[in-house]
Formats: sequence, structure tokens, C-alpha cells
Amino acid sequence: MTSGRFITFEGGEGVGKSTQAHLLVDALRGRGLEVVQTREPGGTPGAEAIRDLLLDKRFAWDTRAEALLFAAARSDHVSHLIGPALDRGEWVVCDRFIDSSRAYQAGGGEWSDDAVLSLHTLGSHALMPDITFLLQAPTDEIAQRLHERDGNDADRIGGKPAAYHARVAEHFRQLAVTDPERFVLIDASGTPADVHLRVMRAMAPSIGEGG
Amino acid sequence: MTSGRFITFEGGEGVGKSTQAHLLVDALRGRGLEVVQTREPGGTPGAEAIRDLLLDKRFAWDTRAEALLFAAARSDHVSHLIGPALDRGEWVVCDRFIDSSRAYQAGGGEWSDDAVLSLHTLGSHALMPDITFLLQAPTDEIAQRLHERDGNDADRIGGKPAAYHARVAEHFRQLAVTDPERFVLIDASGTPADVHLRVMRAMAPSIGEGG
Repeated sequence: MTSGRFITFEGGEGVGKSTQAHLLVDALRGRGLEVVQTREPGGTPGAEAIRDLLLDKRFAWDTRAEALLFAAARSDHVSHLIGPALDRGEWVVCDRFIDSSRAYQAGGGEWSDDAVLSLHTLGSHALMPDITFLLQAPTDEIAQRLHERDGNDADRIGGKPAAYHARVAEHFRQLAVTDPERFVLIDASGTPADVHLRVMRAMAPSIGEGG
Repeated sequence: MTSGRFITFEGGEGVGKSTQAHLLVDALRGRGLEVVQTREPGGTPGAEAIRDLLLDKRFAWDTRAEALLFAAARSDHVSHLIGPALDRGEWVVCDRFIDSSRAYQAGGGEWSDDAVLSLHTLGSHALMPDITFLLQAPTDEIAQRLHERDGNDADRIGGKPAAYHARVAEHFRQLAVTDPERFVLIDASGTPADVHLRVMRAMAPSIGEGG
């Protein structure tokens, strides 16, 4: 059998990351593989507690403190869940990981990609995924989905203006361009089943089902 | 008048840091100076919340996550309290700061001094104190004080064995040796008033009272 791989799903809000992570986990388990499904920020009790701090409106975290808290949560997640699972030869599928910090903090905030990666080296031995699916869909379609899900104002996703999300999406694209061996760009338009088929086609070589 | 200075008190547990910080703050205020008194970890609502996470026994933080959490707390403390006070020309007296991270995490734990300082650069623009008082007292005397204060087993301070505290104390001493312009070694044996006199003698040049 193949040994475990570390797979992450990345992309902006509303693009379908958690749905696709879930469908991939089911597909892998259906093939008899041991799979750990997790998400960031969070995934362990310590990291979930840090997630609560990050979301707590009482604290006006600036970019630096926020980046350190994300790195602390990831460090706990890697050392207590992701790392041990990979060491056991299991697969790990994670909804968001280091590339979200790079896109949101370096792309959307005031920080550099180098600074985010330095924290990742210090906190998590610079662990990188084997495969990262970057889900991309037209802005209009994402706004429509979020509107249906949350009733949000389509112009403000997660309380941020559309221009912010465009910067984050552009930073994700740039990350994918600089690391084409790890990143797989996935057209996230259409139904969840459509998108899942695209993911599974890209997964085929990794699960011994031809390319 | 003199402009504000950033003064820290460092040293092991039970050596009298908070007492001496308090006495110095009173003395500076008695000279008409604006002084902010604070402590680490903590000092701001965000940093205090991180302090609670660090002390929470439910989470088995390893050295890396712990170091990132301390750096996040310090970043919040510097950007929301210490930095603004210094910008206003006020004095800041802080019970523990970066040197405690260096002594406990690099000296007592598994990390390097470079790693701790890298986090400090990323989180807090590498802000360093102008004067650091390193309080030192014989181990026997500290054990006796902690026994009187907490009823602790004199062999285990803060739940750690004496050998651990000896390593931390040695690391503090090494830091002081490598930066003699910033560090002032203070003999912390005797009464609080005795120690305060030694601190004030060292402060004299900074408050325009001769050296």
C-alpha cells in the first residue's frame, strides 16, 4: 500500500474547502486507508483554545500577535496530532494550514511571507503538506454561496471588503505558482460532486489508480 | 528632566523582583516621574488571557508552542502598553521581560537563545530594556523565603527540581556577562529595604542624582 500523505485544502471563504476535505476523507477511507481529518486554526484542545482567543472580540490583536498565536496553535496541532499521525503512516487531510497564514497575514495583512515562514520553522519544524488543493471559484459564485449560507452582505465576506479578499486570492495564486509540485489548482465552480471528481482525478497517482 | 526609560527586573522565583519593582516605582513617582508598572506574562487583557492559557493544566504545551505563546503575549504587551508609554516619554518598570524567556526557555528548556530572540524580533521589533536589574541571592536564602511564602518543599521551586533552577540562574548570569551595559547585578540578600538601596544607587545616574 501507499504510505500516508499530508493533504491540505486552501482557498478563500465559501469556496468549499471543508466540504471537499470531507468528501476526500470519505473516499480515502472507502479505499481502506487510515485518515485523520482536521482543520485550522484548531485541531487539538490547545489549538482550539487559541482559536477562541483569536476570535474573541475583546482583544484587538495586531498582525504580529495574531501571527504568533496562529503559529502557536499550529505548533500544538503539528506536535500533538498531525506529526504523530504521519509518523504512524496514516493520511492527514487538513482544512487550511500554513498557506492560509501566508495568504491572510502576508497577503492580506502587513507581514512578509518570510516572517510567516520563519514562525513556521520555529514552531513546527517547517512541516509542509505533500499535496495542497487550492480551490478557486469566480468571486460572484462565492458571494452567492455565502449569501445562501450566512445571509451575509455579498460585498463583505467575513466582515472584510471584497478588495481584501481579492488580495488574499491573488496571494494564494502566487503561492501556487512558486510551488507547482505541491499545489494543485482546482476549479471549485459547480456542484460539490463536480469538484470532488476533479480532486479525485488529481489524487489518482497518489492512491495507485493511475494518472 | 530625564526622558522615560524602560527598566526590567529579572531573576529566579522568590528573589524579590515584584517587591523591588514596586519600591522602585514608588521612588520614581516620588521624584515626580510618570511611571507605568507592569509584569510578564501579562500586562494587557490579551496578554493576561494568554497567561491563563499558559498556566492551564489541561494543555500540555511543548517548548515551541510555549515560546510562541510567550512571544504573542509580549507582542501584545509591547504594542498596547509598553511601546505607547515609552512613546509618551513615560518610564516603564516591568517584572520579567525577554530575559526570562531566554533564561527559562533557552536556559531551562530545549531551545536556543537565537530562537527566542528571533521570536522577539518578529513579535516586538526586538525591543530591549534600557536597564535590567538581575537580582541574585544564595539558593538557601531563596528556598527559605519561598518556604515562608508558599510552604513549598524547599527542594522544588514552582514544581521544578533545584537543578533546573540552577540552570536558569546560570543562564541569567551568562546573559548579564554578555551585555554588561544593560544588566546591573544586584545582591538580593538581606531585607527589601537593603536591596532597594542597592537598586537606587545603581539608578542614580539615570535620574540625575550623580553616580
